[in-house]
Amino acid sequence: MKNSYLGELSAEFLGTMILILFGVGVVAQVVTTPDGSLGDHDSIAWAWGIGVTLGVYVAARLSGAHINPAVTIALAAFKGFPWRKVLPYALAQTAGAFVAALIVRFVYSDLILSVDPGLTDTQGIFSTLPGNGSGPATIPTAFFDQIVGTAILVFVVFALTTAANNPPLANLGPVVVGLLVVGIGMAWGANAGYAINPARDFGPRLASFLTGYQTAWVDQNGTPYWWLPIVAPIIGGLIGGALFKFMIEGFLPPEVESLTVSEPTVPEPRGAASDTNQNA
Amino acid sequence: MKNSYLGELSAEFLGTMILILFGVGVVAQVVTTPDGSLGDHDSIAWAWGIGVTLGVYVAARLSGAHINPAVTIALAAFKGFPWRKVLPYALAQTAGAFVAALIVRFVYSDLILSVDPGLTDTQGIFSTLPGNGSGPATIPTAFFDQIVGTAILVFVVFALTTAANNPPLANLGPVVVGLLVVGIGMAWGANAGYAINPARDFGPRLASFLTGYQTAWVDQNGTPYWWLPIVAPIIGGLIGGALFKFMIEGFLPPEVESLTVSEPTVPEPRGAASDTNQNA
Amino acid sequence: MKNSYLGELSAEFLGTMILILFGVGVVAQVVTTPDGSLGDHDSIAWAWGIGVTLGVYVAARLSGAHINPAVTIALAAFKGFPWRKVLPYALAQTAGAFVAALIVRFVYSDLILSVDPGLTDTQGIFSTLPGNGSGPATIPTAFFDQIVGTAILVFVVFALTTAANNPPLANLGPVVVGLLVVGIGMAWGANAGYAINPARDFGPRLASFLTGYQTAWVDQNGTPYWWLPIVAPIIGGLIGGALFKFMIEGFLPPEVESLTVSEPTVPEPRGAASDTNQNA
Amino acid sequence: MKNSYLGELSAEFLGTMILILFGVGVVAQVVTTPDGSLGDHDSIAWAWGIGVTLGVYVAARLSGAHINPAVTIALAAFKGFPWRKVLPYALAQTAGAFVAALIVRFVYSDLILSVDPGLTDTQGIFSTLPGNGSGPATIPTAFFDQIVGTAILVFVVFALTTAANNPPLANLGPVVVGLLVVGIGMAWGANAGYAINPARDFGPRLASFLTGYQTAWVDQNGTPYWWLPIVAPIIGGLIGGALFKFMIEGFLPPEVESLTVSEPTVPEPRGAASDTNQNA
Repeated sequence: MKNSYLGELSAEFLGTMILILFGVGVVAQVVTTPDGSLGDHDSIAWAWGIGVTLGVYVAARLSGAHINPAVTIALAAFKGFPWRKVLPYALAQTAGAFVAALIVRFVYSDLILSVDPGLTDTQGIFSTLPGNGSGPATIPTAFFDQIVGTAILVFVVFALTTAANNPPLANLGPVVVGLLVVGIGMAWGANAGYAINPARDFGPRLASFLTGYQTAWVDQNGTPYWWLPIVAPIIGGLIGGALFKFMIEGFLPPEVESLTVSEPTVPEPRGAASDTNQNA
Repeated sequence: MKNSYLGELSAEFLGTMILILFGVGVVAQVVTTPDGSLGDHDSIAWAWGIGVTLGVYVAARLSGAHINPAVTIALAAFKGFPWRKVLPYALAQTAGAFVAALIVRFVYSDLILSVDPGLTDTQGIFSTLPGNGSGPATIPTAFFDQIVGTAILVFVVFALTTAANNPPLANLGPVVVGLLVVGIGMAWGANAGYAINPARDFGPRLASFLTGYQTAWVDQNGTPYWWLPIVAPIIGGLIGGALFKFMIEGFLPPEVESLTVSEPTVPEPRGAASDTNQNA
Repeated sequence: MKNSYLGELSAEFLGTMILILFGVGVVAQVVTTPDGSLGDHDSIAWAWGIGVTLGVYVAARLSGAHINPAVTIALAAFKGFPWRKVLPYALAQTAGAFVAALIVRFVYSDLILSVDPGLTDTQGIFSTLPGNGSGPATIPTAFFDQIVGTAILVFVVFALTTAANNPPLANLGPVVVGLLVVGIGMAWGANAGYAINPARDFGPRLASFLTGYQTAWVDQNGTPYWWLPIVAPIIGGLIGGALFKFMIEGFLPPEVESLTVSEPTVPEPRGAASDTNQNA
Repeated sequence: MKNSYLGELSAEFLGTMILILFGVGVVAQVVTTPDGSLGDHDSIAWAWGIGVTLGVYVAARLSGAHINPAVTIALAAFKGFPWRKVLPYALAQTAGAFVAALIVRFVYSDLILSVDPGLTDTQGIFSTLPGNGSGPATIPTAFFDQIVGTAILVFVVFALTTAANNPPLANLGPVVVGLLVVGIGMAWGANAGYAINPARDFGPRLASFLTGYQTAWVDQNGTPYWWLPIVAPIIGGLIGGALFKFMIEGFLPPEVESLTVSEPTVPEPRGAASDTNQNA
């Protein structure tokens, strides 16, 4: 059982690491080739979504693949995930994001140096900024944007992983969750860079700070910003989870028995993503 | 039973809301970042399709996920969906689209203000225009275009959700329906902006009018236009449904028994999307 | 039985019509908005692939969804499809492509007129040209290109629809066949516009000729060209089919019984796509 | 049994050939139409991924579809694939890549000649270069980049093909493996062109040398480079495989019996991709 808990944390660490290896990696590729020859915002949206899909496949069997503290907290609030595991999960997720960002920082160091020798213009590779670092978006707008974006994320994730709601079968839910994040990047990325995940933002932010970025904790105007992609997604996730619980789940029939396959070795409920893993 | 009907309307409301949060959201993102740095027509086509996929997953279990009055009417005409539910469904769909558009309007207000302070140039974020607001497309062309586009939509949706026609299984039909809308955006978006859904067009149009857009009801030449993306899609949907019924369904064998899984708690037939939900 | 044969031809007609409504439609959208604001070569590749996927879903149950004479001929040569049906199928496919092209021609007529009033520059909307109408590609290069492209198409289609070769299940083969055509458009579209389908090329070519295009039968240098996208794909399809038969199928074990679900009402073998339709 | 082994090698040859027909083909299409009218880096990333998906479907039943010597070696090290087959598999893969590159070289020769008559600027169509032939990327950076990229590839491939880890079912794993390679192209393509496969790089490199490219064996500075995309991916694949074995597989429960379908005619274990082929 102890071993199993360690496996859960290992899975959250590695699942979030894979997410960030793709997510921070694609922004590094696009930002450091400024002629656009190796990607654009479309590739950014797709690679983040692919990172989510693959991170979920890596972790789903062992931990349920939250790979996002806002999801973990919403699962604790609405789906019976144990509260005592919330902080360890969030730390494992943040550590995975941190290590992945260090790897990107290291491998892309030549290219980053070539476009931003003073490490003053490429903070956006690692962490989010209001209006992606330019334009008229304000802190309150970014705050509301992150609430809406994460509410959409958690509401749809719950819809896609609640067995009684007819989710995708054949264990293909992670592909649709990836499409969800592609869509959020395309439609909800303009005001605050769609962090929608405290670990995704804080881990790479810390990694950038420790490797020379002086701008890590503030926005483009020098206002402290690091707290916003932590607080607002947590609020948004709780709103999205509540919306699902009361406006969809409350009307659902009791779960269909024939679709429930017992998991042989799972010690306790682990939350959303694992609900439908066994169904084919 | 009453509760179940309320659940159907809640699902249509939320499913259409999700569709518009992505659809109107992506146009807002692209239009308000005019250098194209955060998307282009490709991301518009993909995010609308992803919005359809996710909206269908949200609503399919409770209501069959029409999320489009033209689909609801075609289902009533050809698939036994009860006529008395058509108006309530259409109202729930339009209300969901309206609320979603208000959310986009609110979160994107900084960015909209920065590119269009007089609210005269960005009507296209919310509702459709002949030729997308420029070019030679006329009202009759837009009318025929919307008939063709919606006929394609309903014809293929019927093909993808009629159990005897071998639709996608493992509850992955919603992904293919999303691809269908991606394709319509890429191939049938030039003449009238592919509304193909009265709720998608009227709800956001009303939201834009109530929040300051004086151009909401007319096209770029000042001609009343709001009626066209309501009337033409309804006609097109009926044509597409009839085409499927007589040229495909009429030749299909009786439904294969072994593929039909009885739904445990459904009070009455709800239309197309639910036909294949239970098959894996 | 007669009725069933009529259904097969109706399905081939409508499946190919859907293919061309997307395929010729997307090129019309891109070519008539020359600033690229409504698409580019990426959207062309994706919409052609989506058209294939949807056309196959429309037709698969009734006819096996060849929607391409080169596929029909290869199925007759290597998979037992009856030779006497080859010509009727090819005619139904070409008729579907012809009608779809007329619809595109009609709905896009305003936009085509605005960029090409003399109908001299937009032949490429409807039919293919060596080097897509410019550049150094010669007739022999186009001929070899079409052999290679169609050999890839048929070889992989056979791999994806032969039950003993572990194709995609849950009736999702049509999605992967669509991806195949997306890839061919991205990698094999430069020398001859990837017709890889005689019906796709000849039907729209005829439609363009009958609606005013004087350039329909020749290439950009005035050399007769209409025959090439008919002859070369047929040769290529036979090569690809032979390659699969001798280098893959010859090594496959006998078909696994438990994966074969008997079809209840099918009078005779109809070819590739239907082989795996029943498997979930 | 001997016949079966020949089938395995035939499958590896053809699977890798399909991969390279798309992968080298798409780069040829993009590089030889320098105005970007027929593709861009996004289409390169997608077509490589599609090539992987289709190559795996072609080969999976007969050989397990490694189509990459770095995958074959990692399977031998961690998954019981017989070491004595490693070299024959690698040779078959390299031969398939070589033949495919010759076909691209032949069909695209007009277009290559038109943009690069001296065959001095288009080496990148066939083989990889540090920084894709320009920019500040150094040999050590390229080396580390290839280790990281291939470690991601093999780690996620193991996660997606180990039955006890809940991989995609309905034989759709190859689609997700394709998405994995799309993501690597988008996020890990800037420093060394994401070879991540010794056969993919060496086969086409040899084909380009034999058909006139004097630059085949060196990088843009004249330093011998051909060895790097062989050595670094092998190291990276072993690291990724070890990471999966110790940090995920070590925590997995014993394989679920009910998900294991016995293969009727397979003489011996063939490695990862075949593990889940039978599950639907």
